[in-house]
Amino acid sequence: MSDTVEGREAVALLERTRTTVHPQLRASVESLPGSVRRVAMYHFGWEHADGTPAAGSAGKAIRPALVLAAARALGGDPQPAVRAAAAVELAHNFTLLHDDVIDEDPTRRHRPTAWTVFGTPDAIIAGDAMLALALRLLAEDRHPAAAAASERLAACVIELCAGQQADCAFEERAPHEVSLEDCLGMAMAKTGALLGCACALGALYAGADEEEAAAMDAFGREAGLAFQLIDDLIGIWGDPARTGKPVGADLAAHKKSLPVVAALASGTPAGAELAELYGGPMDAAAVSRATAAVDRAGGRDWAQLQAADRMARAVHELSRAVPDLAAAGDLLALAEFVTRRTR
Amino acid sequence: MSDTVEGREAVALLERTRTTVHPQLRASVESLPGSVRRVAMYHFGWEHADGTPAAGSAGKAIRPALVLAAARALGGDPQPAVRAAAAVELAHNFTLLHDDVIDEDPTRRHRPTAWTVFGTPDAIIAGDAMLALALRLLAEDRHPAAAAASERLAACVIELCAGQQADCAFEERAPHEVSLEDCLGMAMAKTGALLGCACALGALYAGADEEEAAAMDAFGREAGLAFQLIDDLIGIWGDPARTGKPVGADLAAHKKSLPVVAALASGTPAGAELAELYGGPMDAAAVSRATAAVDRAGGRDWAQLQAADRMARAVHELSRAVPDLAAAGDLLALAEFVTRRTR
Repeated sequence: MSDTVEGREAVALLERTRTTVHPQLRASVESLPGSVRRVAMYHFGWEHADGTPAAGSAGKAIRPALVLAAARALGGDPQPAVRAAAAVELAHNFTLLHDDVIDEDPTRRHRPTAWTVFGTPDAIIAGDAMLALALRLLAEDRHPAAAAASERLAACVIELCAGQQADCAFEERAPHEVSLEDCLGMAMAKTGALLGCACALGALYAGADEEEAAAMDAFGREAGLAFQLIDDLIGIWGDPARTGKPVGADLAAHKKSLPVVAALASGTPAGAELAELYGGPMDAAAVSRATAAVDRAGGRDWAQLQAADRMARAVHELSRAVPDLAAAGDLLALAEFVTRRTR
Repeated sequence: MSDTVEGREAVALLERTRTTVHPQLRASVESLPGSVRRVAMYHFGWEHADGTPAAGSAGKAIRPALVLAAARALGGDPQPAVRAAAAVELAHNFTLLHDDVIDEDPTRRHRPTAWTVFGTPDAIIAGDAMLALALRLLAEDRHPAAAAASERLAACVIELCAGQQADCAFEERAPHEVSLEDCLGMAMAKTGALLGCACALGALYAGADEEEAAAMDAFGREAGLAFQLIDDLIGIWGDPARTGKPVGADLAAHKKSLPVVAALASGTPAGAELAELYGGPMDAAAVSRATAAVDRAGGRDWAQLQAADRMARAVHELSRAVPDLAAAGDLLALAEFVTRRTR
């Protein structure tokens, strides 16, 4: 992926974003009260479990990069939006901390998750504090866009909660009880909403009106859905050497990802076969058969077409906010990057 | 307690507050996305677990009453502060939802807690959404005080998190490892901070300057600490018929409440006896001996004197914000009420 021009551009852009936003992000996290700060510092990879400094990465910074790139695309100075970029990254990391507790995920960014190290109570509390910190950063911001940004971020967090709740509910339902529409709605709430919010905040800090901010929001949402579709495809057909996960890990976990739900909803014999397989334990042979069934039922093609369609919609929305798309090169490079990334 | 003039006044005031703030609070909760709304509606006692309407109480509304009374004490119109009052109540209920998960408490307001009904994931998510909703209410508010109110509420939530984290940490430590100073600091963060924030927000909505808001904040904090001290005394010596809890429930649970920590830190033989009792299982005989030991070690007297001292400090702080205390009758009635309430 980083072999393409957009890929190299995006990688450089993310690197620059981290350099720009990291000091604000880190200063904010370090302002937390001691006990809560320690969990947060660990989560971001800045400290080991024993509190000694670590040189870990705090994530790719895709959302902060979208904030700054959206501001630039509308002719704004990205510098005043750095605080908003840090706020979005804090909100994102609040969701990671709580999602890991809820999903009982043992690892994150190749390290034990915070709840496994500090216990569930401390991980819940650190997530709560990180959410409050995100909204505090905007509340303390004297930029004229800060009030509208606060509104959008708070509304977005409520949507993220609804998405996470839907995700949990789907995993408990039988395969035929999850509709493709529900599943797309969940992905939009859980993944698209925050990418859209990041773009809208950047627009607001560049002085955009409500209509431009809404178009930027829609761009981020559609790109986010494309990203989720590609991510789900990688979860089934991705190269384990690149994804860092075993072959078919999502299928082995009975995950109701978008290609799977599309296959289940296809009304084809292959879809019925998949439903039967998903009703039982998924050993290597079952994973292999399920992988082929998703493909034959049309789940793979559907997801690829949807992803392309969503990216086309994203670019269309973007052109409403930035009529001369040449000014939006960074945003397009980021969108390309997230939809082709490897894990 | 409701036999006193202040008591009757406070009860009437709380009733009026619920009538005023309830529509805003309920409309906000009903604006949440369906799945999250359901948990929140249950938590507030407005719906049964199956989603049918319930006539339950949503709590005493002490914090919203403080917001409105603080606005009135400074000569302000309480009506524009109703939104802020609802925001404070939402923030309070966010802490209840998460604290119940963290402490694994089975009941709240005489009903099964949300996590026991909907599961831990849904209760965590509903709490998250309620916190975001609280800050969203203020972000959407066009009142000139809204920005400063957002800052204070977000900062307060971070302090609440630190308080809850300290509480969890104390419960895991050996009795002699918890100092009285740590314990007072924890109570200030966990209980005082939000009562202080409620008073400060009311002041801001009445047009108070930063100094008046800070004095109101200090009033609420000191009153909050007095409340906690009285609450801890009731937890040991309260009449079970009035508290609804068995005799000595806090001691039976090895709770490191303020009178207990004061007794442990007393350096008296009775304090040593208490430490030894707390090292073992607390049956009825042990509870009875521990109760006497806290008393003999001076924990009871200390807590009563501290509570009186804190109330004196509260009134002194209040007089800095409201030089003619006659205007602050409602606030004083509420402070009297919370420090003498039965559970």
